[in-house]
Amino acid sequence: MYIGIDLGGTNIAAGIVSEDGKILIQDSVPTLAGRDACDIVRDMAALSKKLIKDYGADISQIKGIGIGVPGTVDNKKGEVVFCPNINMLHFPLAEELRKHIELPVTLDNDANCAALGEYTVNGGNAAVYLMITLGTGVGSGLIINGRVFSGANGVAVEAGHMTLVHDGIKCGCGKRGCWEVYASVSGLKRQTKDAMEAHPESLMHKHLNSEGAVSGRTAFEAAKEGDEAGKAVVARYAEYIADGIVSMENIFQPDIIAIGGGISREGDYLLNPVKQFVKKNRFNKYMKKTKLVTAKLFNDAGIIGAGLIAKD
Amino acid sequence: MYIGIDLGGTNIAAGIVSEDGKILIQDSVPTLAGRDACDIVRDMAALSKKLIKDYGADISQIKGIGIGVPGTVDNKKGEVVFCPNINMLHFPLAEELRKHIELPVTLDNDANCAALGEYTVNGGNAAVYLMITLGTGVGSGLIINGRVFSGANGVAVEAGHMTLVHDGIKCGCGKRGCWEVYASVSGLKRQTKDAMEAHPESLMHKHLNSEGAVSGRTAFEAAKEGDEAGKAVVARYAEYIADGIVSMENIFQPDIIAIGGGISREGDYLLNPVKQFVKKNRFNKYMKKTKLVTAKLFNDAGIIGAGLIAKD
Repeated sequence: MYIGIDLGGTNIAAGIVSEDGKILIQDSVPTLAGRDACDIVRDMAALSKKLIKDYGADISQIKGIGIGVPGTVDNKKGEVVFCPNINMLHFPLAEELRKHIELPVTLDNDANCAALGEYTVNGGNAAVYLMITLGTGVGSGLIINGRVFSGANGVAVEAGHMTLVHDGIKCGCGKRGCWEVYASVSGLKRQTKDAMEAHPESLMHKHLNSEGAVSGRTAFEAAKEGDEAGKAVVARYAEYIADGIVSMENIFQPDIIAIGGGISREGDYLLNPVKQFVKKNRFNKYMKKTKLVTAKLFNDAGIIGAGLIAKD
Repeated sequence: MYIGIDLGGTNIAAGIVSEDGKILIQDSVPTLAGRDACDIVRDMAALSKKLIKDYGADISQIKGIGIGVPGTVDNKKGEVVFCPNINMLHFPLAEELRKHIELPVTLDNDANCAALGEYTVNGGNAAVYLMITLGTGVGSGLIINGRVFSGANGVAVEAGHMTLVHDGIKCGCGKRGCWEVYASVSGLKRQTKDAMEAHPESLMHKHLNSEGAVSGRTAFEAAKEGDEAGKAVVARYAEYIADGIVSMENIFQPDIIAIGGGISREGDYLLNPVKQFVKKNRFNKYMKKTKLVTAKLFNDAGIIGAGLIAKD
């Protein structure tokens, strides 16, 4: 058994994960991201101990702790190198955590952990498996022969920061035209707002969230009611996703690409136009094709994957 | 010792390659690409036998033949699946070659072989090594821990067919906006011609090749003489290359990216603006950075890499 911790900007979600990647028990506490990192670590340790106690286990049964971090980590040093949303810059997370709980600690990027977690339920016998998460940004993780591929320095795969539109809209990373700017839910919301401004008659104006704001669902809901402007937004958004997916295929030729994130709940309504574009535009016309699926685990993937990196 | 064959659209180049990736002897014959594939195979066998004889070796000293094919191969079946410039469609290349010379035959894509060859002289201890070849197209090969990564089906890595300009100029592969359309030498020539048309006064009009045509050197030569339009072409071409290189970095985080192909002979004049763009725009700001180098082996890389895939 391992403890998997998915350290997010909003919550610290953790669970006890079995050898075969099942969550045996899970719980979470708020991250309160603005506070001192050492306080966050203390809560991570307390949550881990609570899970062990609640499951009726003994710490000696836990082989290690894995943590998915929303940033860049140096696992060899046990260090969070940089984490934009939490106060951790060159922060010795493994060492700090071991002050509270004496277990080996393994770190990786959260998107890589999510990919590994999803792979356990969705990967079959895939030799090459890619997960793309469409959320505030576009996250990605690549699994080769069951192991996370994170490049020469632990920072790969950041497919969201592949250019999709040369000299396009500026991304938070500093570069212009990143896939993330167009295919993330933030990108969809921007595209929706632009279309609403151009189309005051559109049904999109009626589909705001409970706070009266544009959401990732606004254009989808209007489109499903036949709204032309909404349909155009959805079609273009699907094409942005698909164009990046084709690039991913042409680069990695994975057995499977899983699309995750809340927007993947739109299911076939989003996936079908994506698949059509991919089919028409992929480079590989003769060999076995990549299978495009929606992710299944949603938030659990991060906990499971974090647990499994501790296994390695 | 192995025989490495680089099957090109113009020449069949082959050599005897040592265990440590040195060419011991090499030779070539014309491909005459339009003829029947079986005739090409007969010449590949004859060339292999000639090399063995000329080196004073015996066939029993050769452990295998590796072939780099400019197309898609299925190495498990020993088949060239598709090869746009040579008449080979679902062609059993390994079996056909073994009719003439009884040695194990291994196949891979030519760009993958070139990457493996270049890695032997240029790779150091790189765990992740990427080679990009800028020629008629943009070829690419990825080496992970000393072995070619070719995806789940042998078709990876086709980085030249990653989108760089969403909805951009149509590529030979059928998709729009591929990196190859902008960063290949063919792309450079198109950009040069467009600029010449817009600038009748440009010195580019003086720098044609011996046949009076625009070449990959036209804009570079004019730029070096201070021609403004030529400088603009070179700057924009470097930016197209660089924007794709940043995507490659963000995706793979390699230790090294080697840039090959004839245009890489422009050396620092091309590499410096590329490096500047990459430095400014890369995602990885905190961990070890990718080293950008020019390839060293030119045409020999394909032979060496083909020999070394036979080793595996």
